[in-house]
Amino acid sequence: MSDNDLQQRAINTLRFLSADAVQQANSGHPGLPMGAAAMAYTIWTRHLRHNPRHPRWPDRDRFVLSGGHGSALLYSLLHLTGYDLPLDELKHFRQWGSRTPGHPEYGLTPGVETTTGPLGQGFANGVGFAIAEAHLAAEFNQPDGTRINADERGKNIIRVHPRESASHIIVDHYVYAIVTDGDLMEGVASEAASLAGHLRLGKLIYLYDDNHISIDGPTDLAFTEDRAKRFDAYGWHTQIVPDGNEVEAIDAAIRAAKQYSRPSLILCCTTIGCGLPTRAGTSKAHGEPPGEEELRIAKEKAGWPVEPKFYVPEDVLAHFRETAARNSQLESEWQSRFDAYRSAFPEKAAELERRLSGELPKNWEAGLPAFPADAKGLATRAASGKTLNALAAKIPELIGGSADLAPSNNTWLEGYPAFQAAAPQGRNFHFGAREHGMGAIVNGMALHGGVIPYGATFLVFSDYMRAAIRLSALSHIPSIWVFTHDSIGVGEDGPTHQPVEHIAALRAIPNLVVLRPADANETVAAWKVAIARRDAPTALILTRQSVPTFERFNVQTCNVERGAYVLADIGDKEPELILMASGSEVALIMDAGVRLAAEGINVRVVSFPSWELFEKQDSTYRESVFPRRVRARLAVEAGIAQGWEKFTGTDGAVISIEHFGASAPAKILFEKFGFTVEDIISQARSLLNMRAD
Amino acid sequence: MSDNDLQQRAINTLRFLSADAVQQANSGHPGLPMGAAAMAYTIWTRHLRHNPRHPRWPDRDRFVLSGGHGSALLYSLLHLTGYDLPLDELKHFRQWGSRTPGHPEYGLTPGVETTTGPLGQGFANGVGFAIAEAHLAAEFNQPDGTRINADERGKNIIRVHPRESASHIIVDHYVYAIVTDGDLMEGVASEAASLAGHLRLGKLIYLYDDNHISIDGPTDLAFTEDRAKRFDAYGWHTQIVPDGNEVEAIDAAIRAAKQYSRPSLILCCTTIGCGLPTRAGTSKAHGEPPGEEELRIAKEKAGWPVEPKFYVPEDVLAHFRETAARNSQLESEWQSRFDAYRSAFPEKAAELERRLSGELPKNWEAGLPAFPADAKGLATRAASGKTLNALAAKIPELIGGSADLAPSNNTWLEGYPAFQAAAPQGRNFHFGAREHGMGAIVNGMALHGGVIPYGATFLVFSDYMRAAIRLSALSHIPSIWVFTHDSIGVGEDGPTHQPVEHIAALRAIPNLVVLRPADANETVAAWKVAIARRDAPTALILTRQSVPTFERFNVQTCNVERGAYVLADIGDKEPELILMASGSEVALIMDAGVRLAAEGINVRVVSFPSWELFEKQDSTYRESVFPRRVRARLAVEAGIAQGWEKFTGTDGAVISIEHFGASAPAKILFEKFGFTVEDIISQARSLLNMRAD
Repeated sequence: MSDNDLQQRAINTLRFLSADAVQQANSGHPGLPMGAAAMAYTIWTRHLRHNPRHPRWPDRDRFVLSGGHGSALLYSLLHLTGYDLPLDELKHFRQWGSRTPGHPEYGLTPGVETTTGPLGQGFANGVGFAIAEAHLAAEFNQPDGTRINADERGKNIIRVHPRESASHIIVDHYVYAIVTDGDLMEGVASEAASLAGHLRLGKLIYLYDDNHISIDGPTDLAFTEDRAKRFDAYGWHTQIVPDGNEVEAIDAAIRAAKQYSRPSLILCCTTIGCGLPTRAGTSKAHGEPPGEEELRIAKEKAGWPVEPKFYVPEDVLAHFRETAARNSQLESEWQSRFDAYRSAFPEKAAELERRLSGELPKNWEAGLPAFPADAKGLATRAASGKTLNALAAKIPELIGGSADLAPSNNTWLEGYPAFQAAAPQGRNFHFGAREHGMGAIVNGMALHGGVIPYGATFLVFSDYMRAAIRLSALSHIPSIWVFTHDSIGVGEDGPTHQPVEHIAALRAIPNLVVLRPADANETVAAWKVAIARRDAPTALILTRQSVPTFERFNVQTCNVERGAYVLADIGDKEPELILMASGSEVALIMDAGVRLAAEGINVRVVSFPSWELFEKQDSTYRESVFPRRVRARLAVEAGIAQGWEKFTGTDGAVISIEHFGASAPAKILFEKFGFTVEDIISQARSLLNMRAD
Repeated sequence: MSDNDLQQRAINTLRFLSADAVQQANSGHPGLPMGAAAMAYTIWTRHLRHNPRHPRWPDRDRFVLSGGHGSALLYSLLHLTGYDLPLDELKHFRQWGSRTPGHPEYGLTPGVETTTGPLGQGFANGVGFAIAEAHLAAEFNQPDGTRINADERGKNIIRVHPRESASHIIVDHYVYAIVTDGDLMEGVASEAASLAGHLRLGKLIYLYDDNHISIDGPTDLAFTEDRAKRFDAYGWHTQIVPDGNEVEAIDAAIRAAKQYSRPSLILCCTTIGCGLPTRAGTSKAHGEPPGEEELRIAKEKAGWPVEPKFYVPEDVLAHFRETAARNSQLESEWQSRFDAYRSAFPEKAAELERRLSGELPKNWEAGLPAFPADAKGLATRAASGKTLNALAAKIPELIGGSADLAPSNNTWLEGYPAFQAAAPQGRNFHFGAREHGMGAIVNGMALHGGVIPYGATFLVFSDYMRAAIRLSALSHIPSIWVFTHDSIGVGEDGPTHQPVEHIAALRAIPNLVVLRPADANETVAAWKVAIARRDAPTALILTRQSVPTFERFNVQTCNVERGAYVLADIGDKEPELILMASGSEVALIMDAGVRLAAEGINVRVVSFPSWELFEKQDSTYRESVFPRRVRARLAVEAGIAQGWEKFTGTDGAVISIEHFGASAPAKILFEKFGFTVEDIISQARSLLNMRAD
């Protein structure tokens, strides 16, 4: 039997395993797996450096199936190459409790590098992988293992493989992806592609499954741009493989891609649902089970046994597993290199191991800023900037940037260069006005490991990147989102720039901790929560305008990590009224509380920076902050009320903004929209059935 | 005095009026107005067909300032050309109550065609304008006024001006925009640009203010792609104007752009903050007041009087106002053409007038589907498809489409072609996998008028287009959003495709009505609400899976328009328990209610499709649905609870999903996640302090 025949049967195994899984589930997407099987085969058997028995090998190549709907293909690859994914899991594709969900989920299935399905995200995650790789390579490879400098704009300069020629190359991997029409149409991928070209991320090798079919029908209906030319304009190296079933041609293109210091897009012309007798090349092949009859004929045409289903020829399995053996050899070689590296650079090696393990540096919390009480105070974005810089000095893996708002977001790490093609050691990122791309790239960096990434923009523009924020939460990855300019406090920029619903909308995302600190010291504590939270994302919500630094606050006792806490009980007796607020409005309830107490009312003032953290506390703590018997409760937040009712209860009230903002100085807006001490006092009095005088 | 001198002083007037406004406000963005003044001058005095005394002239050219932060430039233009925007408004730039907010707001200031500021949105709105123009031209111009067919791909075929040569051309206008680096970096603009190129929207003429400066610093930091090449790849016609202060060169480029049947991007090399002595060409010019001294020197260098501020030379004002006179002549000519058109095609003319007035056709509500009671029922997306098609037959201006999910969203209008370059009369849109672009394009169509547009995708992907949804609400425009696959009912596609927080997140947006109908007849009623709502957007939230059609429901009495209503009071006495739900969960509470009533409990079942509509009802109605004395209240929604507490109260409860979904058949997910009749009964019993047996 010729190698060629084995190869063809290996590809058909991918096709029919995938199709059988979809057919058995009576749900799923056969089109991509059947069309892109040869592309996947070529990457996985000829290029991908990985070890199925050790999926977390740090220097493995990353593979991203950006068109996550083709998950059956990925599961087939994982099974065949020897990951811990038995054939039974494929038989339970898309079923409750399986590790083979409809779209690949990071953390659930070994070998799945990122959660994909929402189009364009995987594409951009890969850019984050490549950034992390380049950064760690620059930081750790020794002594001459750094990248070549960026080649001149517009030229395809041949890579000189400096890493291979250097002695201590321990970070050096590629990022492969299969991307689809849908990915290329999505703006998030366009943003990431533009940045990847700018940054000359040569380790990106993306294969485009150019099958000319979208869900609505032929791509000609909506997508006739010159894709290769567009990516060329971004600064990518582009190639076209006229027949995406030709393993040698794909292989040659990948090998060529590796020679260039630009990111590569290889356009592979394929047929969706390749092999299906009536559905191949049609949109019906995309997302519907083929049907028993269609699948039977497809198998017969391919000379494939109709039964048993989930058929894996022994020699095909052996062929795939052989790659596993070859790959574990690659890891062994890497391990030897790493051992030599450790001998030569023990501190560097220990540092890299620490970073990759996700362990924070010792004493990272020590020496963070503490802010003295100050009625004038400072903006929490400013306190955040100081805290971030203090953290950055302690935590070298803390890197990130802003979507072209660094001076406003206060996210620049002073004294460190920007990450650029010629400076991959840089810790500051200019993401450009590309919020969504930033979000997905930051997720990719977090998924890669070895770095703790953050991304920043105005809170109102969290809308632009919401799909990426959601995926960080769904994937349990520790992306840190910094959102400044958090209310009508934005002032003159007006309603387009004033978030009123965004805090609520972010609180809506499961598994995301939203933290809106009230002053500078709460901001320090909020950053500590974000950094310590290594298994899920955190959003920091920060003011543009100054807020007082409270007298009784300090970093040790401000209890931000419990989500809500008693800032002050004012009065001689048990509280009869609870005022609660987050962020800039805490200063208002504090003042109101003092004034109400002067009238003889016993007032509790609660600072409430995070609903999610508070709801994780035990009922004793929750009751200690909000005793059941105190029904007069007033929440104050310069945003919509939605959800506060849970804490204020039926007899409470919320001072909120249920409409869009306006353009005027912030102070005037707070007055006009009812956010003054007087408004709070008045509302509190009516809650207590007192007559306002 | 030479024309050239007058022209230069007119441009300087734009610069210094804008700079004075920013300086007086001590807030704002002088950089764009000063850099792009010559571009704006050229468009507004040499090309823009508009009538400042009649800003709503339907066939006016549209002007979009996509970089809305440069609002002072737009306000200066509006004032100088004679719109109802007195100089005093410029003096109150960014102040409470002015019509000159920080970013341009549609509906607030005459002549502002769209609300801009969030980058990329205006770019994409303009694409929507051009689509509406092409569609109305195809529908109404007579007899040979239709578009030329799309030219061959890749060729720049000279436009043959068929509209001008035909006799009855009443829809024929351009869309001009000034776009910025930020716009071009945003994915939403990339998506819209790709679609505009595909659709060959030749009426788009965009001038790119290529000033090489972003907020973080030089664009070289993050944006080095070949912009012209990228747009060329999209199918645009591109030109470069090396000096963006050269009126003749800009003018020539615009004239050339008009000759081509492709959308045009004219890259104008400019200097941000042009004229400022120390800040010109730096990012400090972007978003900070120049300062008195900087501005003084700038004026002196330009030979401009330092005082008075807001100086408008008389001859400059006369020059701008002269264009107004010329333009009202253009409108008169158009009016004559329209009168002749009305004589020749009275029905067509009346129809166009009706559409442009926003008035719906008579009897549009008659003959909509009514669905008989049916325990099996149908998916609300299917009922929506039938309703939409019935509406489309009655309402010819109803047009729209899906982001490559038409077969799943059930949004195809049967019997009508797709809108394409060669078929601008088409009413169906293939937006491609470009949700964000779709959102902003639909907004542009709605802003243009003459059409009632809708855009559709899966509910989970509303995240991708959230910024556009927000702007539809902020702008009070009647975009209709159709979101199907509204819960874990999505089933096997898994958590990436299952919205759990999206209904809450949409409800968070002020001025957006979110409607989640419970069955087929509520779906009909929901569409009627959406169509009738001509001053704000509506989001329809629809199931993938079948839901029963209720016996007691019919289109006349189901009261969807009141937001919540009593579906059934079951039992002999006043209700002691209220069950409430939206969408697919109403069937569950109905069944639970019947079973609880059989146990002797008096149960009220409330269908609650829309919080926003319910909260608009008077207190009598609200009390009639939720009597204060009934404290045992249970809400059931297959999404997060956030906000339901407002209706259930402190003594109530919510059956919700506070985590992401999973991949499995929908029925299993509902069971596993606690959405069964038994779960509801059990929870209701504990609310009533009854022991579950």
